Parts: sequence; structure tokens; C-alpha cells
Amino acid sequence: MADEKLPTRAEDFSEWYNQLVLKAQLADYAPVRGCMIVRPYGWALWENIQQALDKRFKATGHQNVAFPLLIPKSFIEKEKHHVEGFSPELAVVTVGGGEELAEPLVLRPTSETIIGHMWSKWIQSYRDLPVLMNQWNSVVRWELRTKLFLRTLEFYWQEGHTAHATRDEAVAETKQMLDVYTDFAVNEAAIPVIAGAKSDAEKFAGADITYSIEAMMGDGKALQSGTSHFLGQNFAQAFEVKYLDQTGVLQYCWTTSWGLSTRIIGAIIMVHGDDQGLVLPPRLAPTQVVIVPIYKTDEEKSSVLKTAKELKAQLLKTDLRVTLDEREGFSPGWKFNDWEMRGVPVRVELGPKDVAKQAAMLARRDKPGREGKVSAPLADLPMTIQKLLREIQQSLFDKALAFRRANTHETKSYEEFKRAVETGFAYASWCGSGDCEEKIKEETRATMRCIPLDGTDVLGHGAGSGSGVCIHCSKPAKARAIFARAY
Amino acid sequence: MADEKLPTRAEDFSEWYNQLVLKAQLADYAPVRGCMIVRPYGWALWENIQQALDKRFKATGHQNVAFPLLIPKSFIEKEKHHVEGFSPELAVVTVGGGEELAEPLVLRPTSETIIGHMWSKWIQSYRDLPVLMNQWNSVVRWELRTKLFLRTLEFYWQEGHTAHATRDEAVAETKQMLDVYTDFAVNEAAIPVIAGAKSDAEKFAGADITYSIEAMMGDGKALQSGTSHFLGQNFAQAFEVKYLDQTGVLQYCWTTSWGLSTRIIGAIIMVHGDDQGLVLPPRLAPTQVVIVPIYKTDEEKSSVLKTAKELKAQLLKTDLRVTLDEREGFSPGWKFNDWEMRGVPVRVELGPKDVAKQAAMLARRDKPGREGKVSAPLADLPMTIQKLLREIQQSLFDKALAFRRANTHETKSYEEFKRAVETGFAYASWCGSGDCEEKIKEETRATMRCIPLDGTDVLGHGAGSGSGVCIHCSKPAKARAIFARAY
Repeated sequence: MADEKLPTRAEDFSEWYNQLVLKAQLADYAPVRGCMIVRPYGWALWENIQQALDKRFKATGHQNVAFPLLIPKSFIEKEKHHVEGFSPELAVVTVGGGEELAEPLVLRPTSETIIGHMWSKWIQSYRDLPVLMNQWNSVVRWELRTKLFLRTLEFYWQEGHTAHATRDEAVAETKQMLDVYTDFAVNEAAIPVIAGAKSDAEKFAGADITYSIEAMMGDGKALQSGTSHFLGQNFAQAFEVKYLDQTGVLQYCWTTSWGLSTRIIGAIIMVHGDDQGLVLPPRLAPTQVVIVPIYKTDEEKSSVLKTAKELKAQLLKTDLRVTLDEREGFSPGWKFNDWEMRGVPVRVELGPKDVAKQAAMLARRDKPGREGKVSAPLADLPMTIQKLLREIQQSLFDKALAFRRANTHETKSYEEFKRAVETGFAYASWCGSGDCEEKIKEETRATMRCIPLDGTDVLGHGAGSGSGVCIHCSKPAKARAIFARAY
Repeated sequence: MADEKLPTRAEDFSEWYNQLVLKAQLADYAPVRGCMIVRPYGWALWENIQQALDKRFKATGHQNVAFPLLIPKSFIEKEKHHVEGFSPELAVVTVGGGEELAEPLVLRPTSETIIGHMWSKWIQSYRDLPVLMNQWNSVVRWELRTKLFLRTLEFYWQEGHTAHATRDEAVAETKQMLDVYTDFAVNEAAIPVIAGAKSDAEKFAGADITYSIEAMMGDGKALQSGTSHFLGQNFAQAFEVKYLDQTGVLQYCWTTSWGLSTRIIGAIIMVHGDDQGLVLPPRLAPTQVVIVPIYKTDEEKSSVLKTAKELKAQLLKTDLRVTLDEREGFSPGWKFNDWEMRGVPVRVELGPKDVAKQAAMLARRDKPGREGKVSAPLADLPMTIQKLLREIQQSLFDKALAFRRANTHETKSYEEFKRAVETGFAYASWCGSGDCEEKIKEETRATMRCIPLDGTDVLGHGAGSGSGVCIHCSKPAKARAIFARAY
């Protein structure tokens, strides 16, 4: 509820975030350390995210499935990098039905292993390929430092898994799904992202290549917002996933996996939110328009509510997601604050004078005060609001992009680099060694976010490719990369 | 795949079921005993079930949420009947992040306890009520005898949870959701069900009253297909879920819960399936229409496929779910069998002669051979198929209802009763004692399925209320109940 104000973002960004998640009733802390309850408003947002992604997955030929939560512990140990990466984070079931289990079972931290195991049974010939699967579920990783939506013991996501006959096809799939994530982030979440390759130190445990989309939060830090992995034949070899090719030769498959989680809700909060609370992109907002009726007398109330209900029905017909706030015992001002906290893109204020004029006052969530207000005839509202929502969607993206550009710097010296990562992204030449990467992290708390697939896109003014010398060791550079402090 | 025939239902119903689930690629056995993998075709069916139910839940004011998988073991112990019922079935996490946990965590067998815990924080006043929540997830119960979809260690379901200010309101909610399940079963799954109250022995651990919908499978056995529980104040007292009423007095809430699971897929298989495989109700079928092209020469192929693609596009426009089977290397006959195994309601056969006549042959899955075949002009197909699907939907329901009626008997003597439960449902007077219920179970393997809410509905000819004497002990009867062997 909106009874108390949030700390400002400038004062304490982290505490602003924590309180906002609770006050907007997106989520709450569970009784088990590090676990999260996603409340109705947060889950409605996630359902809209799921729909926007699921449509894209199905359009690219993927089918949804459900593999079990419980995985034999021995499976995790079959791929050598995978076990190194995930062993420290496992939750283990040792007792079932009152008895000690012969083999402990782990709660899936991700499903490559159990899917590999089943593929080895299902896939026989080139005719069975490609296999294009996805599942929506939750996974468990025993994280030590947790924060709602950004890092929790159990989190919700989708995990795509595909198997292919050739390396090229698997690489193309990996990049296609990265493009799907970029398209989703830009066009649904109004978040500009940089798509690129991770370093060996940051890639998925078991992948040959990990690509990610990286977004800049409102405090200049980076958030990895989705990943797509080319797994080579690593899991295919560990689980004997083979097919007979057209010439009758037995070959290992090439596999991929890709995931996007409820972290993206954290990104939406931190990219668009302001000191009054959440600011939701219209395409994903559970409520796009809230109608707040304003009245004093019973007579006013009955006339205003009648018009408000007609208006709601009229807006619903044009497929807008509308809430009419009929709550008793709360002032209009309190309701305005409450819906601002929840980030509803457009507020319709409707009082007796508006009804008399057959008009209503519209207020944009993304533009505070007078600037975002406009009066419009009731008859035109469906059209006016649809147009306004499109404008808000674009405006949120533009603002986020401008912010990222203002806080992204090309750096030629380590001094410049250190200043840049204090407030945002540093774009720098890098020798490619894990050693430099590690020292940069120790000295500046910045990590290598990605090597952008299109280097020219980051600053929007043609930054060029990886020429020059490493920002840290001055040896010849192998790549131009983005460094930043990150969530 | 349809390469080998199923055993017939008459030969071995149980084995017919097991093989059908695998051959229709609905699900497969997981590497962990008793766990299930739901394959793309099975999950697509579940997604259609989810949509049909979710729409109904939202229309009745419920909101989706997500509570965590992990529950402190101590929570389960707070409600005395709940702990008795669920303790033997728990899976327990004892290790997390490499360390022994101070308090073991259980994988949710159901979520009343953790939800009660959170409600005690969220609910303060009558203004906060009712709370109407639902979640789609999986739960874990350590079952010993398992069967795909019917009983697995982990299964998929929805669990609704609501809190109310008054007893009456909670009872009304319990019955409303039972009605929602009945409406779904009848109008979406084409399964006639009997809605009624369970006995004390069969009710949910922690409920005051459990209602269920019971369906008759193709072998005459009963399957409980959905349950709705009135929980009284049992969980509210165990978890201190209280609200300040309008007069300022602190009161315990009244709560309900209700669930429907992937068991319903088992019901759909066993109610409608035949010796050729699955028969899916059109409203839930992932593919409603399959187009099988028939050709010999390359010239025929190109002409038939061109028309088939146009037809597919035309059918998609009318919101039909259509598959065009372009697989190479399989004969039309093989494809017919394959789609029959998968239960697709309507098959469109399209060969060169059909293209010449601008017509196609339609085959109904539910009517074998000539009887289910009709030729129709291509131009009329969208209308013809829409009409056919409605007929099939109704026809499946009618057939299932006729089967249930033919295998349901009013029984006046225990001899009649014993004969009746050999092949179906016995409708009998019962004294209401758990003792008689237990003995009937021992002697006949039949359990008390439910006391129908509307006794007149079961045989369709006005069976009357609970007059007479108990079928087992001959003491005065308290109720007319349905008994049957059950899954």
C-alpha cells in the first residue's frame, strides 16, 4: 500500500527497490530464507511476460513439455563443467516417504542432464531432428545473497532445450533465441539491451559459448536479462545423445539451451521505476488503465459511477486491460498514489464536472504533474488511450536508451575506465585473458558483461571493432567489450 | 508411434492404458521411480485444459499467485489431521548448498500451510476479504504404486485457496468451484460426472467437508476427477489467520481449497479411448483436424500439397487447430493409424481425385469405418468441420453418459451390490458409519465415492433420497451413496 513514501532512488537505490517490491505488492519474502512469494499483481505481470515469450517460442517451432523436478544426483556429475558449476548450489532430497533414499535426488538447478538422458532414448535418426523444446517451471539454486526477483533460492523461468544434426544449425538456433529475447526486451518490456558473448569465466557451466542480453539499470549497474547457450556436443557426449545420419553413420547431436527468468521483473522495476514507484510498460502492464471516480455526495457518486462503468465496458471492448477503483473509504488522492506505486500507465479521473462535460482527465504515469495530463471527450477515450499507451511504450524505451547512452563511456585509459564503471558501462579493448578480467574485477568491481555482437550499436555512434590495446595490461586487444558492475 | 497394435481394452484395460500413453506420446517414465515426463502432445493437451479452467477461475474473481515449493517441516505439523494425512508421503530436503539444514524442508504436497502462514500477515480486516487465489504448479507426494497421469510422485495441478469472513460464504465458494469443475468436465472434456460429498474416511486431511466430481472410466471403475474442500476454521486456527470484523472484533477466517490435476488426462483417455487409441474431445484436442495428403507421382504431390496448404490456411482462419502431415517416407495408411492413436477428432484425406473435384473426404475419429466418413466440397470445409466437431463433442458425452447409465445399478441387497461393483457403480443406502464403509471395502474392493448432491441425477430417472436401510448392516440409512472400485 502507498501509505508511506519510498526512499528516493538517489538516496538509496537498493532500499528503494526492496520497499517498492513490497509496497506495489509484487512479491513478499517466504518463510524459508531466500525464497519468494509472487503475489497476484506480480504474477499477472509474469503471465503477460510468459504470453509474449511463449507466442514467440511457438512461432519459431518450439513445443512445451514438462520434465520432473527431481534429478538423480549422479546425472549432475556426468558433464565435468556442469558439476563444477552447480554442485555448490544444490538442494538435495535424502528422505522420501519416511525412508532414507538409496540415491539422493537433487532439485533441478536446470534440466540439461535429465533432458539429455531422455533424448538418448527418443532420438534415433536424423528424421527425429531437430528437437525443439521449452518448459515453464521453477528451479532451485542455493544462493547465499538473495534479493526479490533478482536472486532467490527458487525462481521462475523458462528453459528451452534443442538438439540438432549439425553445429551450424545449433549455433543458428542459439542466436535466433538471443534475437527473440532482444525483440521481447525492446518491444514488450521497453528495455534497450546489448546482445553479446560472455567470457569463459562468466559462461554457463557446460556451454561452449554463452550469449546474453545485458541491460542498464537506473543506478548504472548491469543486469544479465536472458541467456542463450551453444552447448556443442558436451551434453550429447555425456548422455549419449546420438542419431543415425543420412549415410547411416552414428553421430552425436549438437545441443542448445536458453532461459529467461523472473529477473526480468527486477529489470522492469529498475529501468523504468521512479521515486513514486513502479512504471510499467503498457504492453506488459496487468492494468493498463485505471478509472478513479471522484465524488462527494451520494447523488454525485451514483452519476459518476454509472458513467465510470459505461466507460469501463467501452474500454474493455477495445481489448484494453481496465480496472475501475470502486474501493470505499479511500480518498481519490490516496488512490492516485496507490496506482502510481503500482505503475499503471494511464489514470482516468472522472468527477461530476467531467460527467457534465462528457469528458475525463487522463494522467500519464510516466510524466508527473501537469505535463502528463490531458482532458479528452469520453466518446474518444478508447482511441485516445490506445494512442497514449503506444506513446508511453515508446517514450519509456527512448528514455531508457538515452539514460544508457549518457552513462556508457568509451574508455582509452584505465583511469577513464575506473571512472566510467562508477556510474555506468565502460566500453574498452581487452586482451581476452581471464587474468586481466579477474584483476579488473578485484580492482573496480566491474565484470565483463559481454562482447557485443554488433559493436557499433552500443554508443549509437559507430564505436568500431576490437582494435587497440588491452585497457588493463596494454597487450594487443582481442575484443571490444562492455564492463560494468552488475546485479 | 503406431507401428504396433495396442492390446484391446477387453483383453487388458490396464495394459491398454499404459501402452496408449506411451504410443500416443503423451508421457514417458522418468529416470526417478514414479515420476513422469509430460511430452509435447500431452503438455499441449494440458495447456488447453489449463486455459479452459483458468478462464473460469478468473471469471469468478480469482487471481493467480506463486507460493514456494519449499515448506518448513514444522508447518505441516501445525494442523493435526493434515500432518496425519501427509506425513507418510513427504519428500524432505535435508541438504542445501553443501550443508545440512538446521530445519528440514519438505517439498509441498499441497500449500494450505504456507498460504495460511502468509495470510496471517496479509489479512487484517474484513476489508481484505475475501481472498481468492489460485496457483498452477506441481506437488510431490511419495506414492508407492504409480501409474502415468493417475498417480505419480510429482504431478501437475492447480490449487485454489480462498479465505472468507463467514462460514456461509466459504461453503458457497466450495460449491461454486465444484460447479466450475463439473462445467469443465461436462462441456470441455465431454465427461459426465457425479458431484457429491466424500465420507470422513475419504476426505482431505484437514477438511470439514470434501466434495468431489466422480467419473466412470471405460472399465466401470471410478476416478475422482477434482475436489473442493471446505476447511472450516481448521487452518485459520492453526496459522492464526484472523480479521477485525465491522464491529471491531477479531475473528478467525473460514477457508477453502480446491484442486484439479493431470489425472483428468487419465480420465479423458479412459472415458473416450478405444482399441485404436486416444479419442480426444474436440474442445481440448491440441490438433482438431489433421490433413493427410495422398499422392503417388511428383506431379500429384505438388498439386495435392498446394491445395492442402491452401486448405490449412483457410481452416486456421476460422480458429481451428490444424496440422498438415507432410512427413516423407510414411504411407497415408500409416499416417491414418498414427493420428488415430493420437485421437485427432477429424481427418481430412486429400488425393488427386479430391483436388480435381474440389472436395475432400472427412473421417470422424469417434466413428470407425464407412459410418464416420463423408465427402464435402473444399469451399464448405470450415463450416462443415466446425459443425462436425460440435457433433463429435456432443456424441462423446452422450456415449459416455449412456455407458455410465448402463453400468450403474440401484442395489437393494448386498448380493446385488456385490454384482454391481464388479462392472460399475452401485447406488445404495448407507448408514453413514465408517465401520460399514471399511467392511464394504474389504469385502468388495469398492469405496464410497460420494453422496451425490443431487441424488436424482445419477441414473437419470429420479432415484430419490436416502430412505431405507443400509446395504451392509441393515440399520436405518442416512444417505444414498455411490460405491465403486476406483483408481
